[in-house]
Amino acid sequence: MSRVYNFSAGPAVLPEEVLKQAAAEMLDYNGCGMSINEMSHRSKTFDSVIQTAEQDIRDLMNIPDNYKVLFLQGGASQQFAAVPLNLMKNKKAGYIITGQWAKKAYQEAQKYGEAVELASSADKTFSYIPDCSDLDIADDLDYVYICENNTIYGTKFKTLPNTKGKLLVSDVSSCFLSEPVDVSKYGVIYGGVQKNVGPAGLVISIIREDLITDDVPSYTPTMLKWKTQADNGSLYNTPNCWSIYMCGLVFKWLKQQGGLVEMKKRNEQKAAVLYDYLDQSKMFKGTVRPEDRSLMNVPFVTDSEELNAKFIAEATKAGFVSLKGHRTVGGMRASIYNAMPIEGVKKLVEFMDKFEKENA
Amino acid sequence: MSRVYNFSAGPAVLPEEVLKQAAAEMLDYNGCGMSINEMSHRSKTFDSVIQTAEQDIRDLMNIPDNYKVLFLQGGASQQFAAVPLNLMKNKKAGYIITGQWAKKAYQEAQKYGEAVELASSADKTFSYIPDCSDLDIADDLDYVYICENNTIYGTKFKTLPNTKGKLLVSDVSSCFLSEPVDVSKYGVIYGGVQKNVGPAGLVISIIREDLITDDVPSYTPTMLKWKTQADNGSLYNTPNCWSIYMCGLVFKWLKQQGGLVEMKKRNEQKAAVLYDYLDQSKMFKGTVRPEDRSLMNVPFVTDSEELNAKFIAEATKAGFVSLKGHRTVGGMRASIYNAMPIEGVKKLVEFMDKFEKENA
Repeated sequence: MSRVYNFSAGPAVLPEEVLKQAAAEMLDYNGCGMSINEMSHRSKTFDSVIQTAEQDIRDLMNIPDNYKVLFLQGGASQQFAAVPLNLMKNKKAGYIITGQWAKKAYQEAQKYGEAVELASSADKTFSYIPDCSDLDIADDLDYVYICENNTIYGTKFKTLPNTKGKLLVSDVSSCFLSEPVDVSKYGVIYGGVQKNVGPAGLVISIIREDLITDDVPSYTPTMLKWKTQADNGSLYNTPNCWSIYMCGLVFKWLKQQGGLVEMKKRNEQKAAVLYDYLDQSKMFKGTVRPEDRSLMNVPFVTDSEELNAKFIAEATKAGFVSLKGHRTVGGMRASIYNAMPIEGVKKLVEFMDKFEKENA
Repeated sequence: MSRVYNFSAGPAVLPEEVLKQAAAEMLDYNGCGMSINEMSHRSKTFDSVIQTAEQDIRDLMNIPDNYKVLFLQGGASQQFAAVPLNLMKNKKAGYIITGQWAKKAYQEAQKYGEAVELASSADKTFSYIPDCSDLDIADDLDYVYICENNTIYGTKFKTLPNTKGKLLVSDVSSCFLSEPVDVSKYGVIYGGVQKNVGPAGLVISIIREDLITDDVPSYTPTMLKWKTQADNGSLYNTPNCWSIYMCGLVFKWLKQQGGLVEMKKRNEQKAAVLYDYLDQSKMFKGTVRPEDRSLMNVPFVTDSEELNAKFIAEATKAGFVSLKGHRTVGGMRASIYNAMPIEGVKKLVEFMDKFEKENA
């Protein structure tokens, strides 16, 4: 068996220790004689899995007691509807459009009320984060919505927008658990786990308790009302047990590594290796305004489609995989999530440097 | 490692061969150097996984070409909303109430139109299937809805209702792939996979193509509109890749075992072992009218709560686990899905017989 360096934007690389443990426990979880895939979600064994996972993410993110942690299905795309359904009391919300996912959330919200575009970076292919220090925020906005790290375009909010007292709702799918956050600054933080946390098919929503109510439109599907799962410890119906279990293993791994402070340090080091190279390269160029660069997703291009394709083909052959950029940006993208070791980034840069010299 | 006999109603026992293969491939799927949990859902490798899975379930169920197979999230509970949202054109549908899940589907449908109760077995704790040969079906009903196998109460429709030409929609979660079905008799067949097929967090919906349209209420969440996923090969957003992969392995296993004809034969044999014992026992009694008995879920009771508890405790100790009945029926329930070998059922009956003699 030979493992590759996996730069996929998601689903993405997981810690090898976690995969090994999952393989070892596949036929018999913790001596119970069953796989985690075979047991009732209402069993004591699974209850301990989900409770421990919740406590561990609470510890890691230092989540205040007045926030619920929900383990949900349907991905961020489903939360695009759940957010307005649960929060639009005045039927009006502000969206900051920094990429495709923010735009999709904005479009979905238009089904349920007035979604206002507060700012956008569409004018430059979402290659920067707009100034959000003094937005035109109406008094009756229910919330301000952001996608905090933009997987496709490689940008990240380094400063949260000034919401002028309005609720902040943030999709953190591609920067989830990559660095410490102050949860109390948000009304809702949610993320699909399949980028930086665990297997696809699970979204974790961290929601301030007072925002979880029965006051939703009559047509709200039971499964999209946050209160349904909040009242039932995320077990109103059968959840994605496997992903909850795997995320739990990743939480333990993160704790062992030193938690989110250490993750931030490592992620900054890893990103610096790649950005420093890009900044001096004559062939490869980063596509994002430097001050808005993501630590997680690093898009870059050459000035030729042909060279991009050649690079991707040769990199793949050399064991650096899933480097093709999103079709809307083109070129390449290296996603360097928590589980990507710094060696992977260093070796990628060596390979890029070699490629640059050979193709100069 | 010692495996137990797992009678869980769901998530439930999976074929040991499948679990072994999943463990072996955990760090490196098919020589690609990544886990199935780590790869892009848009990669060629995953595309082959989902395409093969779809073809295999089409082969197993002999699904006609004019039906789509969708791999969705949110479980049956989410389809309870999706069914009326996608199908209620006249805002009127008929529901046959044979248990808790049919009732929940019926209640959810009331949000979106007039849900009519066509028949019910609530009068006798859902211990039988009502006569559905001549229901009062209005001309403007959009569909007739059933839960075909009732996990909690252990009943199954042996004959499909006479819908008088109306669409039939069926939740087959707990009898999915347990025997051959004639898909062409249904408008929609769907099932959560976590009972008889694979890991939780995936529902497979088999839908006649002409029922998949853009004609849904304006407030329908994008993720609940069937057309969203039908137009995108179930990859509109990141699906539950793990469960799709595992279901694919189970489909291969089912084909190797001889397909659904063979499964039906085995399931009838297994159920007969247990029902024959119950019919002669002086201590244990089946709770379901004999002609409506499920092959999958077998509830039974003694005449004493104390004895039920003693039996469950001793059975658990002896390695027969998850036998506790649902709280609304009490007593015991043995779920004997495809992956439960006949030896497990025979040994359970031996254990019950011994218990009966010791506690006579």
